[in-house]
Amino acid sequence: MRAATHVAAIFALYLAAAMLIPAALDLYYQSPDWKAFGFSAIFVGGIAMSVALATRGRMPQASPRFGFLLVNMLWFTTAIAGAMPFMASSLDMSLTDAFFESVSGVTTTGSTVMNGLDSAPPGLLLWRSLLSFMGGLGVIALGLFLLPFLNIGGVSYFKIESSDIEDRPFARFQTFTISLIGIYTALVFTCALAYVAAGMEGFHALNHAMSTIATGGFSTHDTSFLRYSQTPAVLWVGSIFMFIGALPFSIMILLTVRGRFDVLRDPQIRVFAGYSVVFALAVAIYLKVKLGMPFGMALTHSTFNFISVITTTGFSSDDYTLWGPFAVACIFVATFLGGCSGSTTGGIKAYRFLILFELMANGLRRLIYPHTVLPVRYGDRSIDDDMQRAVVLFVASFFILWAIFTVLLAATGLDFETAVTGSLTSLTNVGPGLGPIIGPVGNFSSLPDAAKWICTVGMLLGRLEILAVLVIFTPGFWSR
Amino acid sequence: MRAATHVAAIFALYLAAAMLIPAALDLYYQSPDWKAFGFSAIFVGGIAMSVALATRGRMPQASPRFGFLLVNMLWFTTAIAGAMPFMASSLDMSLTDAFFESVSGVTTTGSTVMNGLDSAPPGLLLWRSLLSFMGGLGVIALGLFLLPFLNIGGVSYFKIESSDIEDRPFARFQTFTISLIGIYTALVFTCALAYVAAGMEGFHALNHAMSTIATGGFSTHDTSFLRYSQTPAVLWVGSIFMFIGALPFSIMILLTVRGRFDVLRDPQIRVFAGYSVVFALAVAIYLKVKLGMPFGMALTHSTFNFISVITTTGFSSDDYTLWGPFAVACIFVATFLGGCSGSTTGGIKAYRFLILFELMANGLRRLIYPHTVLPVRYGDRSIDDDMQRAVVLFVASFFILWAIFTVLLAATGLDFETAVTGSLTSLTNVGPGLGPIIGPVGNFSSLPDAAKWICTVGMLLGRLEILAVLVIFTPGFWSR
Repeated sequence: MRAATHVAAIFALYLAAAMLIPAALDLYYQSPDWKAFGFSAIFVGGIAMSVALATRGRMPQASPRFGFLLVNMLWFTTAIAGAMPFMASSLDMSLTDAFFESVSGVTTTGSTVMNGLDSAPPGLLLWRSLLSFMGGLGVIALGLFLLPFLNIGGVSYFKIESSDIEDRPFARFQTFTISLIGIYTALVFTCALAYVAAGMEGFHALNHAMSTIATGGFSTHDTSFLRYSQTPAVLWVGSIFMFIGALPFSIMILLTVRGRFDVLRDPQIRVFAGYSVVFALAVAIYLKVKLGMPFGMALTHSTFNFISVITTTGFSSDDYTLWGPFAVACIFVATFLGGCSGSTTGGIKAYRFLILFELMANGLRRLIYPHTVLPVRYGDRSIDDDMQRAVVLFVASFFILWAIFTVLLAATGLDFETAVTGSLTSLTNVGPGLGPIIGPVGNFSSLPDAAKWICTVGMLLGRLEILAVLVIFTPGFWSR
Repeated sequence: MRAATHVAAIFALYLAAAMLIPAALDLYYQSPDWKAFGFSAIFVGGIAMSVALATRGRMPQASPRFGFLLVNMLWFTTAIAGAMPFMASSLDMSLTDAFFESVSGVTTTGSTVMNGLDSAPPGLLLWRSLLSFMGGLGVIALGLFLLPFLNIGGVSYFKIESSDIEDRPFARFQTFTISLIGIYTALVFTCALAYVAAGMEGFHALNHAMSTIATGGFSTHDTSFLRYSQTPAVLWVGSIFMFIGALPFSIMILLTVRGRFDVLRDPQIRVFAGYSVVFALAVAIYLKVKLGMPFGMALTHSTFNFISVITTTGFSSDDYTLWGPFAVACIFVATFLGGCSGSTTGGIKAYRFLILFELMANGLRRLIYPHTVLPVRYGDRSIDDDMQRAVVLFVASFFILWAIFTVLLAATGLDFETAVTGSLTSLTNVGPGLGPIIGPVGNFSSLPDAAKWICTVGMLLGRLEILAVLVIFTPGFWSR
């Protein structure tokens, strides 16, 4: 507990330092909000420093318990510290709203309670994007280093891939971390340049790039990408980089640093690409046939919005709730899916579907031939019992939590569609839901405070792969 | 295949004989529809007889494949034969409508496409109830004898309970079957008498009793139990007998024939009773506090409608879609639940939740202490791997099919709420969905034909515990 607090405090120090970036930006634009960031930086920095000093000491031996505790502490602390500038800013947001917005950032969800983004102070817009940026980086690190060793949340390349990867592509942890940060940052800048080339303004391009690669979904416009609905180039850039953001980052590293293209044959990539193409194409054809949209435009918008929802980004280039019931049902189903493990996406994720289908095919076979024993395969490796158990545990917890959160949201007075999709979009870190309130052209600002808190908890649970949070609420966790 | 056809043909013969009951009733009431039943009886009887004769021969050795094939054949044949009188009747129903209504009956779902039930010929009303009655009996037999041995669909008392039950309470299969039919029929008559005592007319009481014990949900009124909304005694009788219909039938037999009250301690009964009480009570309090309903009335209606939905019956005593978002969300969640295994209910069912929770608790524990091995318990027995696998397989298939059916229903043009809840209520054999079309005061008559066929397939899948149908579509089933 002490050690976990110490690490979290160190992280909060970095966060305080990061607040100086929007402070500088606001100073440059002569926005009075630079003070809000300056004040927050000093406040958070001061507290973090004292806590860090007070909790110094030997690091404990690595154990699952320490891992789980640390992960929860990190996200919670970051979310609280990240909320400070929102409260201190000229927008004078309430604690509920500030915490919601901050959690939405660090969990790379992208739901927002802010209206008037187009005229908001630039520092605050950048802060939102930075929270997504850091959240995304954190999630990748979590998915690559920690969760697989806690037996949840992913297929680690160190655990699952063929032995030449297992014997460590990098001599040291630090080298790996540096190349991770380097590639992630390079991707953001490449994406920003591509947005600019496609016709987006520089400041908007940088912000959108951060929340594209982080598959976050925060936009600098109230209407998200609707402003670019007539600029296909922007939408295609978005689609491509959201897709890249949803790929396993270990593969990105192997590909960039080692030039190994064979790693792209990872089965989860095929599954993820497969369902993305099926949905985008099916709805594009539907838009062409039923609504008479020109096919090029239909494909552009269908691809952008489906990749956005499937990768749990949450940008929208159109009000797809007006695309008719078939498209809406597809968006609803797409909200569950997610991208690859070790990426910034949320949701159930492609590798879990793969393992579930394997389990199902095996199970059905065993009903006919009760004495066959077949291994559960992932690519050319077999999946051990622990991994199978973790997948089942995740999916079961996911649906049970979804039911509970739906009932809770409805209890605050929200209609059926908003409650059902609001709880879902929080748990999967997508961003928008369906219906007139929290749909692609709406936002979460008009929800009652209780509903915002419920969504906040949902986003945190979803981001930490549910189990990492649930586990610390089991009696066994605290015993001994 | 031949043998399965033979058994199905024999069943169709019984069904043809059963058609003479409504024929007699219509003759008595001088309704011209007696001819429809007479004609159907001769037609179905004739075909069944020829098929039965043509497929005579030695029965094959019992094998899972034969079991699965037989189950599918039986329900499908019964549904087709059961549809005949609807098409031949004076209501002149289309093939789609007749098959939908028949499937809804034999699967004890209770969704209807018929308007004007209050003035429909009595024979046809009785036929609907008889289909539910026979369907319910069939499901109990399926759940007690067949599915547990195919490793799906339930905890068999012969497989799971303590040894004094395992060594057969009845010397012979036939004795057991006779006491099953006896107790089932006795329950229907007791229920009918209770309805009459509570103030229902005789004919309606008998019909409602059949679909109460079968947890079917067909009513003789267009508005279901709304007519009795001011007669609490009727609603309580309904609640009690729906609850009884959702208990494991093996327990009912042991209780009645052997007088063993200890069997009521079955853990799934506690789970089922537990969530029924929680939902009924929570919404009763909500109705009192939020809508100012007198508490007695609130409790009566809340209990009746929640037991109706949880037991997958589908009667309604009020338009609960007007009870506010919290109640609607609770009804939605309740639609998943179901009663006990070996009963007439559909849905996920209490024992699966019990096993899932055990799996989850164990899984969370293993995340902290990776080397603990704990058995998965059901009461004082442990659950073997096959059973665990079957539960996971069922739940995964259930949610994937739900997503697919939702998209398919939406593709026919149905709105989000109707598509989401229509697919759900079909797969769980509840009956009504939510929203203005298929809600508790609506019905399925105005749906497009394509949607009716989708729901029909959903009802059949749900009734045969999904896996029994899926398995015959796997390539492995037909090989060799």
